[in-house]
Amino acid sequence: MSRFRTLTLASLLTLGATSRSHADEGMWTYDNFPAATVRQRYGADITKPWLDRVRLATIRLANCTASFVSKDGLVLTNHHCAESCLAENSTPEKSLIEDGFIARTREQELRCGAQVADVLVEMQDVTAQVNAATRGLGDQAANDARKRRLTELESACEKAAPTAKPGAARLSCESVTLYEGGQYFLYKYRRYTDVRLVLAPEAAIAAFGGDPDNFQFPRWCLDMTLLRAYENGKPVRVAEPLRINFSGPAAGELVFVSGHPGSTDRQLTVSQLALLRDTLPPTLLRSAELRGRYLQFAKAGEKERRIAQEPLNGLENGLKVRRKMLDALHDDDLLALKRREEAELRARVAATPGLGDLGDPWASVARAAQAERAIDQPVTFLENGSGFNSRLFRYARVLVRAADARAKPDADRLREFTDTSLPRLEQQLAAPSPVYPELERLTMSFGFERMREWLGPDHPTVRKLLATESPDSLAARLVDGSRLGDPAVRLALWKGGAAAIAASEDPMIRLARDVDPEARAVRKVFEDNIQAPVRIATEKIARARFAIFGTGVYPDATFTLRLNFGAVQGWNENGTMVEPFTRLERAFERATGKDPFRIPASWEAAKPRLDMQTPFNFSTNNDIVGGNSGSAMINARGEVVGLAFDGNIHSISGAYWFDAAQNRTIGVHPAIIREALSKVYDAQDLLKELQAP
Amino acid sequence: MSRFRTLTLASLLTLGATSRSHADEGMWTYDNFPAATVRQRYGADITKPWLDRVRLATIRLANCTASFVSKDGLVLTNHHCAESCLAENSTPEKSLIEDGFIARTREQELRCGAQVADVLVEMQDVTAQVNAATRGLGDQAANDARKRRLTELESACEKAAPTAKPGAARLSCESVTLYEGGQYFLYKYRRYTDVRLVLAPEAAIAAFGGDPDNFQFPRWCLDMTLLRAYENGKPVRVAEPLRINFSGPAAGELVFVSGHPGSTDRQLTVSQLALLRDTLPPTLLRSAELRGRYLQFAKAGEKERRIAQEPLNGLENGLKVRRKMLDALHDDDLLALKRREEAELRARVAATPGLGDLGDPWASVARAAQAERAIDQPVTFLENGSGFNSRLFRYARVLVRAADARAKPDADRLREFTDTSLPRLEQQLAAPSPVYPELERLTMSFGFERMREWLGPDHPTVRKLLATESPDSLAARLVDGSRLGDPAVRLALWKGGAAAIAASEDPMIRLARDVDPEARAVRKVFEDNIQAPVRIATEKIARARFAIFGTGVYPDATFTLRLNFGAVQGWNENGTMVEPFTRLERAFERATGKDPFRIPASWEAAKPRLDMQTPFNFSTNNDIVGGNSGSAMINARGEVVGLAFDGNIHSISGAYWFDAAQNRTIGVHPAIIREALSKVYDAQDLLKELQAP
Repeated sequence: MSRFRTLTLASLLTLGATSRSHADEGMWTYDNFPAATVRQRYGADITKPWLDRVRLATIRLANCTASFVSKDGLVLTNHHCAESCLAENSTPEKSLIEDGFIARTREQELRCGAQVADVLVEMQDVTAQVNAATRGLGDQAANDARKRRLTELESACEKAAPTAKPGAARLSCESVTLYEGGQYFLYKYRRYTDVRLVLAPEAAIAAFGGDPDNFQFPRWCLDMTLLRAYENGKPVRVAEPLRINFSGPAAGELVFVSGHPGSTDRQLTVSQLALLRDTLPPTLLRSAELRGRYLQFAKAGEKERRIAQEPLNGLENGLKVRRKMLDALHDDDLLALKRREEAELRARVAATPGLGDLGDPWASVARAAQAERAIDQPVTFLENGSGFNSRLFRYARVLVRAADARAKPDADRLREFTDTSLPRLEQQLAAPSPVYPELERLTMSFGFERMREWLGPDHPTVRKLLATESPDSLAARLVDGSRLGDPAVRLALWKGGAAAIAASEDPMIRLARDVDPEARAVRKVFEDNIQAPVRIATEKIARARFAIFGTGVYPDATFTLRLNFGAVQGWNENGTMVEPFTRLERAFERATGKDPFRIPASWEAAKPRLDMQTPFNFSTNNDIVGGNSGSAMINARGEVVGLAFDGNIHSISGAYWFDAAQNRTIGVHPAIIREALSKVYDAQDLLKELQAP
Repeated sequence: MSRFRTLTLASLLTLGATSRSHADEGMWTYDNFPAATVRQRYGADITKPWLDRVRLATIRLANCTASFVSKDGLVLTNHHCAESCLAENSTPEKSLIEDGFIARTREQELRCGAQVADVLVEMQDVTAQVNAATRGLGDQAANDARKRRLTELESACEKAAPTAKPGAARLSCESVTLYEGGQYFLYKYRRYTDVRLVLAPEAAIAAFGGDPDNFQFPRWCLDMTLLRAYENGKPVRVAEPLRINFSGPAAGELVFVSGHPGSTDRQLTVSQLALLRDTLPPTLLRSAELRGRYLQFAKAGEKERRIAQEPLNGLENGLKVRRKMLDALHDDDLLALKRREEAELRARVAATPGLGDLGDPWASVARAAQAERAIDQPVTFLENGSGFNSRLFRYARVLVRAADARAKPDADRLREFTDTSLPRLEQQLAAPSPVYPELERLTMSFGFERMREWLGPDHPTVRKLLATESPDSLAARLVDGSRLGDPAVRLALWKGGAAAIAASEDPMIRLARDVDPEARAVRKVFEDNIQAPVRIATEKIARARFAIFGTGVYPDATFTLRLNFGAVQGWNENGTMVEPFTRLERAFERATGKDPFRIPASWEAAKPRLDMQTPFNFSTNNDIVGGNSGSAMINARGEVVGLAFDGNIHSISGAYWFDAAQNRTIGVHPAIIREALSKVYDAQDLLKELQAP
């Protein structure tokens, strides 16, 4: 499911749903979990020790969630969450995504160079400090002051921690904006940077049904991977890992999902939703065309098929998510509900003593949304980099901007280049992620071509780049001339700083330098004219919500740790009940022998030994979203009874509201994990480690 | 510009714009042209003889407009209107689209096998006959009875005409539905089926700026082609061709466009507009992905680039049109206006004596729109054929359905297979249009893959086709096994009728046979549950409009002959005035040397002789839409002063309303045509023929 953003919450059932949650919805922060509601509804007692134990066993990966499931640092997550690590360890001749991987000894475990494993050890409310920094300032000054204060808080937090030795976990401090500015927190993570691959099934079974089945249920995907976190070259010792209960959950059983939902937009104003509706189509069109280019490229041969696989998977997932988001924004019922809720809130604000000084923040947001329409495409192509779409360019921009940033005081930099951000950037630059020139040329030429289409052939940047070249010839010259595909070259430029960047004749570095003024200029317009007034306005709206509705509210998802509760259940699809469990048997019946409906050879060979009635996937009404992928699904006793990997198709509208009737989470059943490790992959040692963590 | 549908009319300025036209808008039928308005506004006298002369010199091509411009049957139209003829006469090694073409003698003129040239000789109002056939019937029975009556009227009309000898023009009778059912007409055309290619410039200058510049202005496109109509093997003798005035028009001068606007949706109800908004994205996404596949395919080599060019051009045009249509449907002002107009009309209906028996046709339309959402995708993939996207399949379906139809009485057939339709179908089957297996495999595999995505892998048709095959392997088997690429094979099956079809083992014929029951079933649901009630309802709404607003109204575009008037003018684009004329000089300045901004070698060679101040393209406020491409732009004296080939980007919203402030037509200036024929292509004989027609 989404690497970007997906689901969310705001009940269809009642007015005021933006303020109080109904059904089993809500992506709750651990400091504000509604234990009383759970006790009342399910009779389960969720205590502080339970919450602490689950939190400390939950891991944030680079773009997913995972859990410690053994005392020796074994980590359970989804196959699709480890896909970039599998790609990193693949060659055009041998794809670990396709073939799967099993380390038979610790020594065989493979490093995931770009991966991290973060454990949230403390949450500190810094709202007062941030508000003190912005009090009395105008929009733009407040926006700048807020960023500086957040940088200072993060930096002070890390400096207060003991210096970590190389190879050891270190403290990472990140500010978090909750309730669109209603609260600011400092989240403190223990960060492991040595993460290794232990076991991954073949993609054919991990993602059985491929893109056609993505976001569908019934489903048959063994979307699991085992990783292991290391520290000082040794497996991390975990005091209290989660234990897997291989029997799985019963129908109707209470299930918690602990993880990091990526992004939701349930608190947006009506004008912001209209802006999203109008700006989604260009993104969708670019994604759809790029999909066509990848697919056609992949037909050229086996090598091409293999190297296009990982970017294509991510792209197709994002395409489906955004397509259904647009459908949701075309849903007249949803918009009508949002309008009613906004009108109700505004009426209550007007009637509530003490909120008289709010002004009209909704009008400010609407003005900013209108202004954003005019610069949406320049921001997309120039600052967000869609016009220079390639891995090499992204490396180049990081190198150019980081060199520039490090010459400035920490608090004056672009926020993604503060001192606390640099170690992670360096790790990513050093990771041996594969760079395939054929793919780079494809995506980069595509970026130039679409930039020319959307900004127009007479736009100054377009003119400068394409005055005498075609998108293809320019992309070829840049990609073929760049040495940034080599991690050593990247690290040398990183360490060389501003002088090395200024002296570099690498064409990709030169491009990143050349277009930087225009990119920063459009970013500044965005930050000053849109981000700044919107944040002031949404802080006010959040203050109004707290004043009126109190704290029985959960914030929009921000790829930070949340806990939600729900139960194992299916749903009613056009009058037909969808059962919550699938079984192995049907996967074999549904196979066509051709990708993406192909059962891999290992499973065909093991077929006589397999129990065809083994539960495979199951659905629950937990409220999750992309970023929750890889989350443990946990019963009231704190045992893992499932592994969340997707939502059903209705879950995508969760970006804007929670449809209690149809929004469902989909998980891998632990019984199929045991069946696979035991009978298909002969991974008895791992099974033993999991059974007695 | 659009081969599908584009612009239209309904002023932004005033309420009631659906009923009375303001500004220079309106796609008027020749029998209801507002000559008094033109006289009042421009002082020009448009008489019956003027109208008759222009009408009889205006030609409807297969998907465009053209005009007779010499007594020897010379026909002026756009380059992009002749693109399929150029493709038909090309090979993978030599592309006439790319290289251009000049016949130095009549003998060198090349046949356009699939082309026709229709001249509208009579318009007969048959509203009373059609209404008599449906009076008192329920929705579905009326729908069937109406189709039968239209078939009978067409058939009787053609039978009443003298039998044409082979090679001679024949009478073609087509029914036309105007005002969404407010009027029914029988249009009688003189149809020439022998159309030949005389001159076409290189695509590089005909479509200078390519897709990036499409629908843009300022512009520099020599989007012209000369054809010649033949009869009995000799050039058609034209009594009164249009004369080109090579000086072109002055700024502000009155200009008429006579042509065949394809389709507009200005009279749709609000619920129908919402349906369009919701169903456009899937079409857009398919088009965008196919564009990516074509573009990547075209990178494989020169041959691939050449054979993908024509389908790609059409696809990209349609993509831009639909993208801007979606933008228009996201325009809150437009929707608000439509809601107000609908409410106003409903209020006046309620207040108008004699309209009491109308019921609530808007509610009927809304119910049907809701029902259409549920079958939009099955109709698209199964009946409209997007699931089997290939030229070979389209041939196969025509052969299968025509054989079936011919075994039935004329009035009982699907309307596209009535006796009056058969000669045109036979001509298309016989035309040697190129079939490139590589492209067929690409589009067909794409169709299967997307059908599986949108209908789902468990849909019965999908299951049947892909139970043991991949989209690629199935497409390859069908395309490689089919002999329908050979016109002789197609004609043999056509002549062989039902017996030949039943006996055929051609895999494409078998596919068309196999999927026909499911395709017809979903078509029947569409016709009975959506088309039938909608037509009854829109007939009622049309009746109400006539009763309230009278006849000062023009109907939505239907690819039938219309005349509109306007003036040469630019517009205000974000505070900057766009001048209405461009000049040759700037094209050379803007060239990059690389497609699509490459000046062809012939022009580079002629450059020293060219007058750089020659007017190139110009803009007017005429109200046109795709299908009007190739239309002559005519001054009050009846002289050709331009050749319409596009609208500006704002013109695309003309599908739903006419934005008088910004909607502009773009034409080729006759001076650049003379400059090209005289100094670049050395076509002195043609120039002489044009100057003294």
